[in-house]
Amino acid sequence: MTNLSIIGTGNMSQAIASIAAKGGHSVQQLGQSDVDTAISGDVVVLAVPYPAVGDVIAKRGEQLAGKVVVDITNPLDFETFDSLVVPADGSAAAEIAAALPDSKVLKAFNTTFAGTLAAGTVGPLTTTVLIAGDDADAKSTLAAIVTSGGVQAVDAGSLKRARELEALGFLQLTLAASEKISWTGGFGAVA
Amino acid sequence: MTNLSIIGTGNMSQAIASIAAKGGHSVQQLGQSDVDTAISGDVVVLAVPYPAVGDVIAKRGEQLAGKVVVDITNPLDFETFDSLVVPADGSAAAEIAAALPDSKVLKAFNTTFAGTLAAGTVGPLTTTVLIAGDDADAKSTLAAIVTSGGVQAVDAGSLKRARELEALGFLQLTLAASEKISWTGGFGAVA
Repeated sequence: MTNLSIIGTGNMSQAIASIAAKGGHSVQQLGQSDVDTAISGDVVVLAVPYPAVGDVIAKRGEQLAGKVVVDITNPLDFETFDSLVVPADGSAAAEIAAALPDSKVLKAFNTTFAGTLAAGTVGPLTTTVLIAGDDADAKSTLAAIVTSGGVQAVDAGSLKRARELEALGFLQLTLAASEKISWTGGFGAVA
Repeated sequence: MTNLSIIGTGNMSQAIASIAAKGGHSVQQLGQSDVDTAISGDVVVLAVPYPAVGDVIAKRGEQLAGKVVVDITNPLDFETFDSLVVPADGSAAAEIAAALPDSKVLKAFNTTFAGTLAAGTVGPLTTTVLIAGDDADAKSTLAAIVTSGGVQAVDAGSLKRARELEALGFLQLTLAASEKISWTGGFGAVA
């Protein structure tokens, strides 16, 4: 059993909490009113929108030292829906890793809509969580949580691949926003 | 019926030719020995590796004026498999569009392996061809060819989205090369 903390209480937080609980892991969800509650988990999911991450790091950065920190953000320019707001050769995950040098930062969950994560399926496929990161043990720990909850996990490589995962998440959001796919659909992976 | 020309004779060329033929379109395939044969198609697929595109444009650029030109490349650094060789804020498609200002350049077919394109399926899903481009009529023409051959087509937005399609193609290639997925699998799209 892994102790998981999730910062944020939105629909992605609920879906991730549901998967972890299904797999028998303990889950702590921390909302905005829990700012003084200590993080209990060894794996911490930052389930807040990208613009809110900096504030979480400012307030909780020291508590995140030594922990596995999971970035799920899609750092879109939501005004234009035409670009990301992170540098073209970087990623939100790379920024977070730079800000948290004592944490093991992973990118995950940004390529699945909350609906397909909660359902565990995307159309006829089992939902796949793509996980990128530089720490193999951290990736294995998160993959074990994901698979114990009935969802597939695929190691997408080093944290450098967060750039491609964010491109995929961005593309998927634009397709849903333009009604080319639904919010209960999207990309699935076939082994 | 649309007249399609495909420059290149590899497995992607064969798969695209098969789809177009199935849809009742005429197909001209041009290999390296056909350098003096004129392009007959109104839609021209550049089914050559990225490093060979410059040479095709140098030799055939004038013939491509006024035509729909389809870039299918994944401009990977194949030595490292760790980055693309195009600028981080650009794409191979953007480079090709800049080199062919009188053509209507589309990005397509780079997110499907030849196997899933030829089969028409990726696992339980119908294979989806993502098409990005700035000319709506050109996209419709290519989408009609694709769907007439039994494969799904999704309009992925403007040519600027080629950057994300190339990231997706890159990610998929790294997953297959590292045996996380097979060359007959990969990403599928659920509407």
